[in-house]
Amino acid sequence: MDIHLPSGFELAGVHCGIKRNPQKPDISLIVAQAPAVAAGVYTQNLVVAAPVLWDRAHTPSDTIRVVVTNSGNANACTGEQGEQDNAKMAQITAKACGCSADEVLVMSTGIIGEHLPMKKIEKGIIEAAANRKADEEHFLQAAKGILTTDKSEKIASKKISIDDREFKICGMAKGAGMIGPKMATMLGVILTDAPINKDQAQELLSDVVKRTFNRISVEGHTSTNDTVLLLSSGAEGGTQLNQDQLAELKDAVEAMCVELAKLIPADGEGASHLITIDVEGCATEEDAEKIAKTVADSALVKTAVHGGDPNWGRIVSAAGYAGVPFDASKLELILNGTLLYKSGTPVQFDEAEVSKSMKDQFETHILLKLAEGEATVRYWASDLTVEYVRFNAEYHT
Amino acid sequence: MDIHLPSGFELAGVHCGIKRNPQKPDISLIVAQAPAVAAGVYTQNLVVAAPVLWDRAHTPSDTIRVVVTNSGNANACTGEQGEQDNAKMAQITAKACGCSADEVLVMSTGIIGEHLPMKKIEKGIIEAAANRKADEEHFLQAAKGILTTDKSEKIASKKISIDDREFKICGMAKGAGMIGPKMATMLGVILTDAPINKDQAQELLSDVVKRTFNRISVEGHTSTNDTVLLLSSGAEGGTQLNQDQLAELKDAVEAMCVELAKLIPADGEGASHLITIDVEGCATEEDAEKIAKTVADSALVKTAVHGGDPNWGRIVSAAGYAGVPFDASKLELILNGTLLYKSGTPVQFDEAEVSKSMKDQFETHILLKLAEGEATVRYWASDLTVEYVRFNAEYHT
Repeated sequence: MDIHLPSGFELAGVHCGIKRNPQKPDISLIVAQAPAVAAGVYTQNLVVAAPVLWDRAHTPSDTIRVVVTNSGNANACTGEQGEQDNAKMAQITAKACGCSADEVLVMSTGIIGEHLPMKKIEKGIIEAAANRKADEEHFLQAAKGILTTDKSEKIASKKISIDDREFKICGMAKGAGMIGPKMATMLGVILTDAPINKDQAQELLSDVVKRTFNRISVEGHTSTNDTVLLLSSGAEGGTQLNQDQLAELKDAVEAMCVELAKLIPADGEGASHLITIDVEGCATEEDAEKIAKTVADSALVKTAVHGGDPNWGRIVSAAGYAGVPFDASKLELILNGTLLYKSGTPVQFDEAEVSKSMKDQFETHILLKLAEGEATVRYWASDLTVEYVRFNAEYHT
Repeated sequence: MDIHLPSGFELAGVHCGIKRNPQKPDISLIVAQAPAVAAGVYTQNLVVAAPVLWDRAHTPSDTIRVVVTNSGNANACTGEQGEQDNAKMAQITAKACGCSADEVLVMSTGIIGEHLPMKKIEKGIIEAAANRKADEEHFLQAAKGILTTDKSEKIASKKISIDDREFKICGMAKGAGMIGPKMATMLGVILTDAPINKDQAQELLSDVVKRTFNRISVEGHTSTNDTVLLLSSGAEGGTQLNQDQLAELKDAVEAMCVELAKLIPADGEGASHLITIDVEGCATEEDAEKIAKTVADSALVKTAVHGGDPNWGRIVSAAGYAGVPFDASKLELILNGTLLYKSGTPVQFDEAEVSKSMKDQFETHILLKLAEGEATVRYWASDLTVEYVRFNAEYHT
């Protein structure tokens, strides 16, 4: 994949010893060469990790210089010492990069309820700061440095032209299971060089996350550490974007965030399928999202997809208990392009053929059509496999 | 178990050929010797089976004579023909038992999207009506006749004295997974001989179900056929119960429904543990229920219990995303009697000992204490096992 690294950022990823495998980076650094605009969107869980408290208090901003992330320890449920450790991590980073602690954002992911190994982290940050660079290789190392149980790095990148100006966007994300020792959290960082202000950045990110990172599910368990950040260096150098240009930038960021977000359920713990759920014809987007999320979180739907079973009954009955009023006699279901259910009753279809398409393809597509209005939503989920249960049952604290 | 069969009811369970195994009854009949009071509580799913539409229209009532149930076919998502078949089933039953169709309630459970085999059902109903009796053996046959994937019949019974009068209560239930071909639905029938009117019966049942059958979860998937009925023959013969006596009756019915309801997640598909979740100290019962349900439905909590892992992080973070505002710094968690988490942070505990208690006992007890108020809720759930996934993934339509 070509990485279009936006101007104005240097990156590094190093191993400091939180993870056991010395090949795996566990400190990631993103340094803006000049004060950058930054926006953040965070977990809605009430049980919130120290770095989320810190970042919430420091975004939106137009003076951010560094995002430092450690993986392997989430610094969650760690009380006051957790908050002190987080502040220390920002101070160490600030000293190593030549800025103030208030110009540093922090992310942590990994085991919860354990205090950060501050000596290892200090050593790692100093090393990363000394080795940071603005190239593809260092972007990749930084992307690896935020992973936990992920199979590989999750990255995406785009170059867009708006009114003869060229902007770069790139992003990294992590996440495979939602929370718990040995696994935790969804993190994402989006970088761009487009000149936008902090309010524009926050509005853009908040809106994009709604339709991308907030529409994915592995098992529906919201982490204590979920964080998505957007940083803009503005290093493209031209004038601030106008409203039309901003809208084009947003579309490009959203398209890239869709790519990144889908990588998470596709790499869900034990997942054998990525399930894409389209819900159409709802009165409101909120209604469509509730139905999509209920289908996405149904263990019976997930196991049916895993088994290659075109089980329309599980899907339509999940829609029916989503808590959204609709006319069930007008419900229609299309699975991998084949009509299974119409006007409240199943229709004749070639079960063997649909089952084969589910087994042959990594992606299963569920389309639910209602007759309540025009709102639509797209959602992505993992299926539920024996490996998921093994992975999450067989770890013992 | 001693069955205290209330006076005034005759029962039967026969095999008519919907289920393949001729040893397994698939038609169940409960006949009131005189018009009985009847109340019902039904699924909240918008996709609703024909028998639920019928029973909803016929309860509460004080002229019910028969409850007829077939297992093996849910008559759900079967459109107009499904409604006609259901009405026919009521007519056949009425004819066989000497009453009118409007005095018959119907329940169906099993595969969805297929039409009822009416010839088999007719033969079964006629045979059951001819063989009905008021004894333990026939109660057991009727209780077996409503089962699908259940391992064995789910029954409970109580005899209570109120002001020197003696009343009998007994109940049957079924359910192991929520919906889908080869499995479906929670059903329950409560019988008593206590003289109460239809409004009292409906109020009592609606209230009791809230705290019993509506507080259990196998995988959180609401069926299209869920039904709980209460029938009172009034055959004890005395005067109508007064308010105090009614309250005593309700307590007894509730205690029995707790017994019955717990049997469902205890027999959940593939379940290796029954999880009892107590949530205390909430502002409202609704808040407590939301938190309990979120913990009960978390795949990560379920797999942790299956693995004997005292994983407080998964439990407190599930509470945190239930959508209920609370002070997370005052949250307390006690697992199988051991304090794991207090004031927003984990405490030292003997992990090996707690893990051993989880592995040695079939029941795991989770107690979450909040500091928002006085409301409490108890909830019951299955754990999530490799067998659950196999069972639900490996069936192919």
